[in-house]
Amino acid sequence: MTERRSLQASDCPVGRSVDVVGEWWSILIVRDAMEGITRFDDFRQHLGISPTMLTQRLNRLVETGIVRRRPYNTRPPRDEYVLSARGRELASVILALAGWWNDAVEPDHRPVIVVDHETGAEVEPVVVDRRTGQRIEWPQHRFGPGPTASHRTRELLASHDPDRAAS
Amino acid sequence: MTERRSLQASDCPVGRSVDVVGEWWSILIVRDAMEGITRFDDFRQHLGISPTMLTQRLNRLVETGIVRRRPYNTRPPRDEYVLSARGRELASVILALAGWWNDAVEPDHRPVIVVDHETGAEVEPVVVDRRTGQRIEWPQHRFGPGPTASHRTRELLASHDPDRAAS
Repeated sequence: MTERRSLQASDCPVGRSVDVVGEWWSILIVRDAMEGITRFDDFRQHLGISPTMLTQRLNRLVETGIVRRRPYNTRPPRDEYVLSARGRELASVILALAGWWNDAVEPDHRPVIVVDHETGAEVEPVVVDRRTGQRIEWPQHRFGPGPTASHRTRELLASHDPDRAAS
Repeated sequence: MTERRSLQASDCPVGRSVDVVGEWWSILIVRDAMEGITRFDDFRQHLGISPTMLTQRLNRLVETGIVRRRPYNTRPPRDEYVLSARGRELASVILALAGWWNDAVEPDHRPVIVVDHETGAEVEPVVVDRRTGQRIEWPQHRFGPGPTASHRTRELLASHDPDRAAS
């Protein structure tokens, strides 16, 4: 099995994201929450996950502000799990991931699509620049050093050429 | 550790994607490729990953068409690893994930940003509908049954209410 190395000290926003949600189960828990699952037992049954692992992953998603607990019963006290504002923003990225998968599947052969609930119309999630609306396409768009980049990060970003790696 | 259950039989495009790239290392390998890393030893050193694990993950990324091998030496024969067209499309989603992470970080405190290499300007990756340009936002935008949804998938998508799960 993979030995997990924490990326909390890393500069990279992908590494940091992966540290929070990259674990296999975490993405699937967020996906299930996006389908409307809120109860511990429903997550457990749908994912076929052990209660211990589910508790761990849910706690981590709560700690990192992606999921929040919401009481649904007082006697006995019982919480359900719903996406926070931050989790809802992550949901857009997960819909983009679904769009990426579907891009390679003939439209007639897609078991699951992304729809606008209001109109029922299918939508095709793509990634654009918020300011210009231009499609984000690697390697034209790539990682660059930000204001607080460490010396090591600057060196790494300068030491390889993404254009060479594009095929 | 997590016991990995294959989602290859699943209808869900997120589950299928996670089955291919959800493993922690796979996303980091694609990220490194996006930074311009192409050689086995460079991946290994940058990720601090064992050669066995790296070989496994690279083979999986090649099998699934995200990465392709490109010869860079004939005597002895040596391959490097570059993103395929499909991998480049995935790169957009990974840039969106980086954007999601950075959204929660003050602009002055971002060690790594996404830039347009041509202009050097910072870009902010967001997810929109390809056809309308409208922002993709859960729960307005959500999973729906596609043409080949199984009975079980239709049932699951109908049995929970994403609006209830939004907080």
